[in-house]
Amino acid sequence: MKIYLAEFIGTCWLVIGGCGSAVLAAAFPGVGIGLLGVSLAFGLTVLTIAYALGPISGAHLNPAVTIGLVAAGKFEARLAPMYILAQVLGAILGAAFLYVVVTGNGSQIGDFAANGYREHSPGKYGLKAALATEFVMTAMFLFIILGATAKRAANGFAGIAIGLALSLIHLISIPVTNTSVNPARSISQAVFVGGWAIEQLWLFILIPIIGAAVAGLSYKYLLDEPT
Amino acid sequence: MKIYLAEFIGTCWLVIGGCGSAVLAAAFPGVGIGLLGVSLAFGLTVLTIAYALGPISGAHLNPAVTIGLVAAGKFEARLAPMYILAQVLGAILGAAFLYVVVTGNGSQIGDFAANGYREHSPGKYGLKAALATEFVMTAMFLFIILGATAKRAANGFAGIAIGLALSLIHLISIPVTNTSVNPARSISQAVFVGGWAIEQLWLFILIPIIGAAVAGLSYKYLLDEPT
Amino acid sequence: MKIYLAEFIGTCWLVIGGCGSAVLAAAFPGVGIGLLGVSLAFGLTVLTIAYALGPISGAHLNPAVTIGLVAAGKFEARLAPMYILAQVLGAILGAAFLYVVVTGNGSQIGDFAANGYREHSPGKYGLKAALATEFVMTAMFLFIILGATAKRAANGFAGIAIGLALSLIHLISIPVTNTSVNPARSISQAVFVGGWAIEQLWLFILIPIIGAAVAGLSYKYLLDEPT
Amino acid sequence: MKIYLAEFIGTCWLVIGGCGSAVLAAAFPGVGIGLLGVSLAFGLTVLTIAYALGPISGAHLNPAVTIGLVAAGKFEARLAPMYILAQVLGAILGAAFLYVVVTGNGSQIGDFAANGYREHSPGKYGLKAALATEFVMTAMFLFIILGATAKRAANGFAGIAIGLALSLIHLISIPVTNTSVNPARSISQAVFVGGWAIEQLWLFILIPIIGAAVAGLSYKYLLDEPT
Repeated sequence: MKIYLAEFIGTCWLVIGGCGSAVLAAAFPGVGIGLLGVSLAFGLTVLTIAYALGPISGAHLNPAVTIGLVAAGKFEARLAPMYILAQVLGAILGAAFLYVVVTGNGSQIGDFAANGYREHSPGKYGLKAALATEFVMTAMFLFIILGATAKRAANGFAGIAIGLALSLIHLISIPVTNTSVNPARSISQAVFVGGWAIEQLWLFILIPIIGAAVAGLSYKYLLDEPT
Repeated sequence: MKIYLAEFIGTCWLVIGGCGSAVLAAAFPGVGIGLLGVSLAFGLTVLTIAYALGPISGAHLNPAVTIGLVAAGKFEARLAPMYILAQVLGAILGAAFLYVVVTGNGSQIGDFAANGYREHSPGKYGLKAALATEFVMTAMFLFIILGATAKRAANGFAGIAIGLALSLIHLISIPVTNTSVNPARSISQAVFVGGWAIEQLWLFILIPIIGAAVAGLSYKYLLDEPT
Repeated sequence: MKIYLAEFIGTCWLVIGGCGSAVLAAAFPGVGIGLLGVSLAFGLTVLTIAYALGPISGAHLNPAVTIGLVAAGKFEARLAPMYILAQVLGAILGAAFLYVVVTGNGSQIGDFAANGYREHSPGKYGLKAALATEFVMTAMFLFIILGATAKRAANGFAGIAIGLALSLIHLISIPVTNTSVNPARSISQAVFVGGWAIEQLWLFILIPIIGAAVAGLSYKYLLDEPT
Repeated sequence: MKIYLAEFIGTCWLVIGGCGSAVLAAAFPGVGIGLLGVSLAFGLTVLTIAYALGPISGAHLNPAVTIGLVAAGKFEARLAPMYILAQVLGAILGAAFLYVVVTGNGSQIGDFAANGYREHSPGKYGLKAALATEFVMTAMFLFIILGATAKRAANGFAGIAIGLALSLIHLISIPVTNTSVNPARSISQAVFVGGWAIEQLWLFILIPIIGAAVAGLSYKYLLDEPT
């Protein structure tokens, strides 16, 4: 139970910190944290949970990460369904908390921090750019996770490398898709936004998982250390 | 004595760095550090003191942290009152220093970096949002502190994880309550601002302590490593 | 093969992350990441790859770094040509990916993130300033790489020091040349921009290499640890 | 000789990185790095040199640090004069480099990154605020240096804690004095600016040294670990 609780709390925190900073603080008048602050916030959710709860569950916090680790032979497939369930439920609880706070000054949630393409992309990027971006970002995220947690890697630094990798991914790609690379994060926002966010949700479930699985398999056969 | 002096100096530094950067530099014309810079500053006060004075006192720098650690069974209750006294006095000294500097160009302190809700929330968030935010932020802060300082955690990295957790908490929640999660920090500002800041101070003493205690107990029974 | 693949992927990521954040997110209306975000992104590409793929190839990601390490006697000259080839090809693939994404909302690539001087310098700095800047920045980058990876240096921290050194270099010098210090990064952009970017490319190939070689030799004879 | 060369190069880098980012990039139109970027840059000069050249010379890069370490009994007084000479010469070389670059687009150096009070304070803060700020900031800097490099401190993390402490100090105090805490840095700018910067230089030599010495002695008698 402890491992599922850790994934639940951790993914809840990822949504509160990443999506929360986006919705509450990014465009605060005059002193807003901007996309840079949101990027740091997403990365710091992972960095902080990696050091705090990583020793319990591995701190995946993301169904695509769980599936990519299975593909790479680093995580037991039989645990994956419960991990993913805990992640999605945690993410939705985080979004519910944000709903209460965001509406606490009479605001509407609007598009929340939902992911989208075409007219719902922050920079109006089309489907092809969205597909390419989510695929490459998630694949690189998995390469970094797999490399930084390998036995040959510097001990203890994985949480910094992986957390800041997620910050970097957001620094690049928020304008394109609002950055998912994480189906649980996307589902949590779409559930509250409804409409277009649900219609476009397929991309942010499917592509991160494919990107992660391809990266996991590639890493296993091309880059992994000999056992 | 050395441990109380460390808490006194450290909490003084937390107020000088966090509240000071907010009051002096956040809205500096054209090149101000914004809420992102303030968030980093709060976190870096904890990060720097954790490495410098952590080996002496544990670098709590926060009555809610001290109480949360007691609740989790990680800190001796009999030392808590003196820790908290040292923290509050250090915070007030930090605020006194800021008072001297801030008024050194003829400015008034205005609302200083006091915490508030409703019309005193930076983003005009109401009581419910303030309660939910301070409770959840402090509880997550304690989970991260307890997890990152556990024996199973990567050795030496706790100062980074905990300091950056405080930055993350500020990235999310400055718009809601100006972010307390620390009664000593709130008291230090209210003492100089008076009026509304004193009237609303109860929330920023009570809720962080409750959040920390609930997190400490939850961690102990649900997430802690076997002894 | 694994080492060349690591350099290929890593330099591809450097261009996607550094140049990509510059082109996609730096000037995003109202919440853009600015030169600070771009500087962090460049550094984080190196930091993340250093921890993920550093144990495989050393994570040079830069022909000037490879040559500087050869000059310092820290890397075998016979491997350098293939390293450099992998870096340049990886960088070009990264730029091709960016081309697809950037044009995905109907935009032109314009000057992409190409490096330049005189009227193509972001701040209109002339040739002398460009030469001095690229030489000194690359030389200091090599000093930091050589020092932080020395046996006497703190174990495991090199990825942080080197990655953040690249961030620092960008914080200083984007206004002057858009910051190269890396011929592969410059080539990758010039190939897509053509015209002036190709004409000015000599400086961003030649000067980083000279700066790195001079730093490598200086370090070897003046600062290196006794063997 | 190697130790003096390390201090010379390191302090040169501190001025190039910290003052250089301030003069070149802080107010770059639309995408400038602001005081937050300058604060990070100052800290990253120390962080990078600490890991690269710290094992050679200790990476003081600052006459006040050298004197504070002597006061605390952590550094041999007989080496201090040559350390300080190397630091001041390195800082001036860094400023000379910046002079060449900054004027490379036809600009004047103006006030460069000189430190000042009253009408030369960025925020027009008076003498009392400047004295209090430089004293407290330098004293806290020394507490953090002494604590983070103590034997009881986490091994290897001192460079991160000390570098980010300098960032934090700048996040707080650039509006007050443009932040010195380092006589070598102040001298290097005043030499090129002349006039008022020379007249006010006494404060930025005297107060950081006094603050550092007081902190060194206080640490020694009140906080140091038993030998």
